[in-house]
Amino acid sequence: MNDRLDISVSAETRRRVKAAAERLDYRPNPIARALRTRKSGMVGLIIPNATIPFYNEIIQGIAIAAAQKHYSLVLACTEFEPRSELHYLTDMEQRGIEGIILVALDHGDAAAVQEVARRLPMVFVDSYLADTDISHVVTDNRRGAQLATEYLLGRGCERIAFMGSRRVPVLEERFHGFCETLGQHGVVFKPRRYLQRGEAEIARLVQKERVDGIFVSSLHGVVEVLRPLWQLGKLVPRDVVITGFDRPFFPADSAEALQVMGIVREPLPHVEQPRLEMGRRAAELLFERLAHPGGEPVRQMLAPCFREIFAENGAGR
Amino acid sequence: MNDRLDISVSAETRRRVKAAAERLDYRPNPIARALRTRKSGMVGLIIPNATIPFYNEIIQGIAIAAAQKHYSLVLACTEFEPRSELHYLTDMEQRGIEGIILVALDHGDAAAVQEVARRLPMVFVDSYLADTDISHVVTDNRRGAQLATEYLLGRGCERIAFMGSRRVPVLEERFHGFCETLGQHGVVFKPRRYLQRGEAEIARLVQKERVDGIFVSSLHGVVEVLRPLWQLGKLVPRDVVITGFDRPFFPADSAEALQVMGIVREPLPHVEQPRLEMGRRAAELLFERLAHPGGEPVRQMLAPCFREIFAENGAGR
Repeated sequence: MNDRLDISVSAETRRRVKAAAERLDYRPNPIARALRTRKSGMVGLIIPNATIPFYNEIIQGIAIAAAQKHYSLVLACTEFEPRSELHYLTDMEQRGIEGIILVALDHGDAAAVQEVARRLPMVFVDSYLADTDISHVVTDNRRGAQLATEYLLGRGCERIAFMGSRRVPVLEERFHGFCETLGQHGVVFKPRRYLQRGEAEIARLVQKERVDGIFVSSLHGVVEVLRPLWQLGKLVPRDVVITGFDRPFFPADSAEALQVMGIVREPLPHVEQPRLEMGRRAAELLFERLAHPGGEPVRQMLAPCFREIFAENGAGR
Repeated sequence: MNDRLDISVSAETRRRVKAAAERLDYRPNPIARALRTRKSGMVGLIIPNATIPFYNEIIQGIAIAAAQKHYSLVLACTEFEPRSELHYLTDMEQRGIEGIILVALDHGDAAAVQEVARRLPMVFVDSYLADTDISHVVTDNRRGAQLATEYLLGRGCERIAFMGSRRVPVLEERFHGFCETLGQHGVVFKPRRYLQRGEAEIARLVQKERVDGIFVSSLHGVVEVLRPLWQLGKLVPRDVVITGFDRPFFPADSAEALQVMGIVREPLPHVEQPRLEMGRRAAELLFERLAHPGGEPVRQMLAPCFREIFAENGAGR
């Protein structure tokens, strides 16, 4: 039914077939077409969990880009299970999905993921695995950490702690950016000011080491960080300045959180990641790979911005 | 390659074909199989927008249920465009998707949606369209409204306002549940205490009508409701008691929000919708329809719960 010029059909035949098709309300069978072209018109997205707010805008960005290319988006959630990650990768491949966007698990099986990527175009988004030659699109985490650290230094902090995981490359890069920036400003970072997590640790550092600034790798669960400060009678930012990645929220339905957040006397500034854009770019990169297979892996880093105070309408100043 | 008993093949032939397939690392072609069985192994989910937190758990519940049935989940976002809704419905149908779960748009084209539902199993989730015979899974919104209204009455409120849209059946049901419960307790509801939105309206009602309780249809944007109260120097719940549907959050990066939320002296209680369960049930209902086509539309209502105070770990008391 397509006007293909590589098939020799007379104009008259073409016209008559079209007229007949219209009369019969013919619709092309997408499954038959997929069998012929070996193109399913589907791309896959594998994320750890759909309820984590961080992934929403990434999903949205990918959904928009896929729709523009007339591709269906198949979504799967691994629940942080490396076995599920591999299951969905091979399952998607077997279902004829043309390419996959993957938020890599920090404890995933890099060799097995790489193996699938040899057969199927793949792009990491937000989180990637080192020692693979798979393209990725992430925030410039080192730059974001630099902006946040400069903010802490600009507020006069001298004894700054870093709190967060370093288990994946993107989080490790935040820690590097943090240490680098301190070094450039001649501030010494002591290894024992690195906090994996844990409220007791925060209390100890603030009391014993007189920490006056905390870089929180992700502000998602900021109440956990504030709780030990509240217990010590500290105020933010008077006694301890706090900043980090991602927009912080306070739950408004917890008596304890209401108490704890009372110590915050100025808005918590943060590094904003361009999540929608990240999703969109990852999809575009994948579609580029589908159009032109092969080639070197592409590593895209998107610029973060530092939001200090939001105006009433939610826009940054 | 399947051990189908309806095709006559000798045991010896079967064994030899299998051995050859193993030698050649044969994988069944899912597209060819879909063409033969007319089953694509895919279900669709159409939502307005993936960045709205409310939909996350619904997506997650559906993703889990689909994975358990070995189905792929195809996701599309309409961006609140009825035209996009219809586009994705027919597009999914053409791509051989076996059934669709839809969060109905309040201004969607019911007749056109109904038309697709005659050809393809469909289930509404969270929001449905009246005047259709399409199955749906929603929260018992009337019951939720009753719980919230009883809370306001229990706190001694006598002049209660309702704030929110009534454009879709599920929101209209909240308003009904609210009015009903007031009636049962002999409280008179004046039509002019119904607020569509608008801060000026809230200020006027609190000042002129001495409103002492507000039922907010969705607490998602609660700062908008608090702002006029803050401007009047009111405290929550001392002067005005506030409750409603869905978990309220305060942004922690806005100077203005920090000020405004200072008037909240007790946690904001709310009606919690079982969103994960809602998604799971909608998927199960769809799979039931796929297994047994036809039948009367099913209308499932899930019980909400009223969360008054959350404990430290986030669990309700």
